Amino acid sequence: MNKKIGKHSVAFESALTLQSVASVVGTKEGEGPLGALFDIIETDAMLGKKSWEQAEAEFLKRALEKAIEKAKLTQADIEYVLAGDLMNQCTSSSFVMRDMPLPFFGIFGACSAFGEGMSLAAMIIDGGFAKHVLFGAASHFCAAEKQFRFPLELGGQRPLTSTWTVTGAGAAVLAFGGNGPFVRGATTGKIIDMGISDMNNMGAAMAPAAADTIANHLQEFGRAPSYYDVIATGDLGYVGKDLVIKLLAEHGHDVSGIYTDCGIEMFDRDTQDTHSGGSGCACSATTFSAMYYPKLVSGEIKRMLLVPTGALANQTTAQQGETIPGIAHAVVIEGA
Amino acid sequence: MNKKIGKHSVAFESALTLQSVASVVGTKEGEGPLGALFDIIETDAMLGKKSWEQAEAEFLKRALEKAIEKAKLTQADIEYVLAGDLMNQCTSSSFVMRDMPLPFFGIFGACSAFGEGMSLAAMIIDGGFAKHVLFGAASHFCAAEKQFRFPLELGGQRPLTSTWTVTGAGAAVLAFGGNGPFVRGATTGKIIDMGISDMNNMGAAMAPAAADTIANHLQEFGRAPSYYDVIATGDLGYVGKDLVIKLLAEHGHDVSGIYTDCGIEMFDRDTQDTHSGGSGCACSATTFSAMYYPKLVSGEIKRMLLVPTGALANQTTAQQGETIPGIAHAVVIEGA
Repeated sequence: MNKKIGKHSVAFESALTLQSVASVVGTKEGEGPLGALFDIIETDAMLGKKSWEQAEAEFLKRALEKAIEKAKLTQADIEYVLAGDLMNQCTSSSFVMRDMPLPFFGIFGACSAFGEGMSLAAMIIDGGFAKHVLFGAASHFCAAEKQFRFPLELGGQRPLTSTWTVTGAGAAVLAFGGNGPFVRGATTGKIIDMGISDMNNMGAAMAPAAADTIANHLQEFGRAPSYYDVIATGDLGYVGKDLVIKLLAEHGHDVSGIYTDCGIEMFDRDTQDTHSGGSGCACSATTFSAMYYPKLVSGEIKRMLLVPTGALANQTTAQQGETIPGIAHAVVIEGA
Repeated sequence: MNKKIGKHSVAFESALTLQSVASVVGTKEGEGPLGALFDIIETDAMLGKKSWEQAEAEFLKRALEKAIEKAKLTQADIEYVLAGDLMNQCTSSSFVMRDMPLPFFGIFGACSAFGEGMSLAAMIIDGGFAKHVLFGAASHFCAAEKQFRFPLELGGQRPLTSTWTVTGAGAAVLAFGGNGPFVRGATTGKIIDMGISDMNNMGAAMAPAAADTIANHLQEFGRAPSYYDVIATGDLGYVGKDLVIKLLAEHGHDVSGIYTDCGIEMFDRDTQDTHSGGSGCACSATTFSAMYYPKLVSGEIKRMLLVPTGALANQTTAQQGETIPGIAHAVVIEGA
């Protein structure tokens, strides 16, 4: 039981290589600071489909297929698939898997899906149950606004605390053995709800969960933040990032200089009108795949803590006055 | 990699004991054939809450707590929790976990959640990542009808192919070591969609996935159906059960005499007006916990294959004319 590191964390014994990553995004994401780094930038947010929901599924399909292709594998090499999304009943993931007849575990952690998928994929391989696991996560701005907030046609004004759901999908193949980048450990999140009920302030709703997971991680692994070249949360945006910095300072951790949020990296604050930043399941999945993975391969980054974050809200419960639970799953990724 | 048994299956090397199971149900379930076997029968379907959604979460909470209590453990002994439900964004599970500050993986496989949870819990423990994992699944008739079909107040007539969502929750503690009943193996389902689009005929939508998983299981483990004393699918009801028997016959498997469906065991066909039978995440979770687990303990059943089934439909996609993908996850459970 020496894989267990404290109450929330595990370390992986095997070399678990992220053999490939893939990112497929929409036009707005392609126009942002990471534009040159994505595998595919789609110019049609509908991808030729009849609905936003179907388009979201198609984004995920293209990302999963791209990850298999980049890993120089075929579908037959993949032993398990884990995928999650924001749609009710995770239909993007389920519908994609109709065309990919592989053992499938649906996961739900809202926008933390990429972290949950990576954690479970690592456990499955390190546990000896598979050599290749594919995982992915998707979101779509139009589908998310329709489901969680207001119909786009209404043209509602977005408050400055709101984030912009990333249209796209990220995916990765985790493999037994290989030359890295390696998934070395995972710190699994608890549900934390500090009473935020504003569906337009997800950053504040998720920040306490992110800070809790990061603090647990550092404590259980006995590391200072400086162990990492980068600590990146998933989709807290500017509002949530500031809160995480404050909350971690209360734990005695100074993360300045190494901490950022994928939602901040995704869009340009001054020109793209996304207010607090990017969000959605695809936010951390595509930012990690496009921006951080190549740096881990090149050695520009040696160690990073990726902390995808999720706000577990829904429309019915919001109308019933419930507050928004948050969760964050951290994974340690180290270069070769 | 000797844990791997064919493309869809794994066998567990460690003794993985189902240390406890718990079932909490509503009045109608308590009036059915399994009434005397449930841990708790609640007479108020609202459980004192203001909404059906909150009540569903409360059912899950009581089942999770009961499972911990029956395992003679405390919350602090539980290393991971996996839970799933039918609500949009799995809010029942997430909301419960606000009061249970433990590392949490949300899962989504619709009504197959109990099987997905048991499979992943077994991998987590057998992989060396934990000694005690709690998993559970919940559903609520009123919340499900409201979300997936029609408002109850409308009093719509239910077709004879429809099933009745079980109000309740089941939970279990899986532990490393112990004296059984043991989780010995798992066959993970693929998404299969044969084109059923009728939200009132989930049995037909899920039957092909169930038959596929059972056939894969038997083939990969090299077993005849007679290896098992019981094969029980999750919530196909009478309509789906008949289809599974026919589909397995096409694979050359005769399952007569040992195959049933938890949805058939749950309600009395003649007196309870549930048409095709019971369904919902809680259906297999509570039927297994109340009816089969004691028989595995007493030795009346030596080996069973539990196959929770899920229909991955949602209201938006149904309105968009999409058909209903199905999935089924099989777990091998053997007595001491």
